[in-house]
Amino acid sequence: MSQLEMRAADIQNGETTVTVGALATPALLLDKERLHRNLNRLSSRMAARDVVLRPHMKTAKSIDVAQCAYPSGPGPITVSTLAEAEYFARHGFRDMTYAVGLAPHTAERAMRLRKAGVDLKVLLDSREQAIILGAAGRAAGVAPSAFIEIDCDGHRGGLTAEGSELIAVAAAVAEAGVDLAGILTHAGESYGLRARAALVSAAENERAVAVAAAEALRTAGHECPVVSVGSTPTAHFAEDLAGVTEVRAGVYMFFDLVMHGVGVCTTDDIAISILATVIGTKPEKSWILVDAGWMALSRDRGTAAQRVDQGYGLVCDLSGKVYPDLIVAQVSQEHGILAMRSGSTQALPHLPIGAKVRILPNHACATASQHDLYNVVSDSSDAIEARWPRMRGW
Amino acid sequence: MSQLEMRAADIQNGETTVTVGALATPALLLDKERLHRNLNRLSSRMAARDVVLRPHMKTAKSIDVAQCAYPSGPGPITVSTLAEAEYFARHGFRDMTYAVGLAPHTAERAMRLRKAGVDLKVLLDSREQAIILGAAGRAAGVAPSAFIEIDCDGHRGGLTAEGSELIAVAAAVAEAGVDLAGILTHAGESYGLRARAALVSAAENERAVAVAAAEALRTAGHECPVVSVGSTPTAHFAEDLAGVTEVRAGVYMFFDLVMHGVGVCTTDDIAISILATVIGTKPEKSWILVDAGWMALSRDRGTAAQRVDQGYGLVCDLSGKVYPDLIVAQVSQEHGILAMRSGSTQALPHLPIGAKVRILPNHACATASQHDLYNVVSDSSDAIEARWPRMRGW
Repeated sequence: MSQLEMRAADIQNGETTVTVGALATPALLLDKERLHRNLNRLSSRMAARDVVLRPHMKTAKSIDVAQCAYPSGPGPITVSTLAEAEYFARHGFRDMTYAVGLAPHTAERAMRLRKAGVDLKVLLDSREQAIILGAAGRAAGVAPSAFIEIDCDGHRGGLTAEGSELIAVAAAVAEAGVDLAGILTHAGESYGLRARAALVSAAENERAVAVAAAEALRTAGHECPVVSVGSTPTAHFAEDLAGVTEVRAGVYMFFDLVMHGVGVCTTDDIAISILATVIGTKPEKSWILVDAGWMALSRDRGTAAQRVDQGYGLVCDLSGKVYPDLIVAQVSQEHGILAMRSGSTQALPHLPIGAKVRILPNHACATASQHDLYNVVSDSSDAIEARWPRMRGW
Repeated sequence: MSQLEMRAADIQNGETTVTVGALATPALLLDKERLHRNLNRLSSRMAARDVVLRPHMKTAKSIDVAQCAYPSGPGPITVSTLAEAEYFARHGFRDMTYAVGLAPHTAERAMRLRKAGVDLKVLLDSREQAIILGAAGRAAGVAPSAFIEIDCDGHRGGLTAEGSELIAVAAAVAEAGVDLAGILTHAGESYGLRARAALVSAAENERAVAVAAAEALRTAGHECPVVSVGSTPTAHFAEDLAGVTEVRAGVYMFFDLVMHGVGVCTTDDIAISILATVIGTKPEKSWILVDAGWMALSRDRGTAAQRVDQGYGLVCDLSGKVYPDLIVAQVSQEHGILAMRSGSTQALPHLPIGAKVRILPNHACATASQHDLYNVVSDSSDAIEARWPRMRGW
């Protein structure tokens, strides 16, 4: 049976006593206590600064996780695909930002959601997109709402806060009959940092550029109600959010080894891991083979450029305790090769055929996306408490 | 609507006239003519050498593709997960090799399939696995059949052909009541080659090691009916297959930029691509932004170590014609940044918002796995001829 078939069968049978150790592998585990701790950490931080937190659902892609973030009912979220927007709309979410630049087909599809009563705001950074969106709104009989994307650190799209193009795009937005929701920026370059001072500075730059863009629009006579910034590192290191109205972040829910390398979390905060089984050993090479390759872990090598390269993941025992320096050194599609980190003085642990390990991921968004469901566990029990499906596609 | 919902809706509506240009993006395209050409190329090559071709379904994961390989009914296949084995068994396939090392839970699950009449052979390289498999067979009331994995190039698991351990494992297999199907090896290191002579030599090494292992077993009194080798590069470069009874390969059906870099195919042979839409431009950086990031392309950077680094993919126009030197230089989750290859003398093409491109993948297995279905196209028409679902999971 596939994972989803097993899930359906378990539900039918009222099965509740599957333990972590008895799970077929590879499998995605989600530690609920760590998830709640991570959610509370950032939501408390934002509440203390009187700023709206708009969680990015691109990492979790799960209504069950969204309900952990919003236990008393749907709140504002960010999405990375319109399939996510449609999925969360079906589950009652109404206030969403689609934070990927607009194309003609996504404009039409977004307007269908808006027509259905979802306050879906979209993103653009050109006059062409404003015209496309205006036309899509008129065709659907709705008034579109859009953010103008601002580039705060040169990593992707967006306009600069100072240029005349920002004002020209805002004018095109108004001309096209589109409501200007505000400006939106993302400090993507912060993922490459490590020093606390540099992270604080990246957060301040993100804030300052966003506020400057909003002020430039207001000076030119445009309303700019929302000033939206965000990335997991800057959200956790921002000391001042004056002028910012909302913060977006996604990977903070789960954290991962890249975020650990940036210095935002400890390995004990990482809420997801991949359960794997030993399927071979190669004593002459000090290798242990497991049944988690790139299909289960993803090809993400985000720690390769960091101070500590974690290979394709850091290995823990079945209870989640890290084996110091034991990493997934190589992967093929369904094989992972565990080996000690180069230069380690630790001994390779004895892990016979059939032994189970947990692997902490480099990049939670990429690793989770390789799986159809979360096996929900907690630090305090070895039972699978629930199985939460993930959505995928576009 | 999600891709799968659209597919269901299209089928209900009898919709047959969706064109490539009208498809929502990102989307996975499969060129049926190229697929058939690739399938015929290797099956003719193997037939001429009187060797069984056992296609590896880990790349395609699709019954429709398997039926292109076997138009007159199911034949022998290789699978990388037991979910694949169960999926193909539901579609009538009976002769399968699960080419990943055995663990206790997969032994039990494999024996359930065997009990259901599927001739599923498994893989092991240790005495422990032989004992586990024998016990699983007895518990299920079936006689298991296993290959012993041979290591021909040091890239992963398996035993050497000369060592005493091979004979000891064969003895343990017999002792456990397991039928010895034969030996199996995979020249994984061939993916790192480029020169024709080196590829021919890797193929000959794979053959020679496999045959030596089979002969060592036969000398020790074991039958070794099947001598199974394979990788896409060695399958295409082997000059002599004396003593080999079957060849396994998977990525040859689609090919990809890594195989192009190895020298096994041209870019015109690559049968899958990702359709993407331009969502922004950054003229000051000579960047074009598209809506295909690592979620649509995968994080695979297999060409990074090759002579020509293709970034995250090589860009073609809507009809599939390569834009020389235009690659996906950077990706984030749902964004790709197109740029000219460093040092190129070509001009960046003019691609406005809404323009569509096709992106050839580094690694077909990884890129296809990011999608739930193939949009089947052909060189001679711009219509989507069919939508073929893919299976996933373990």
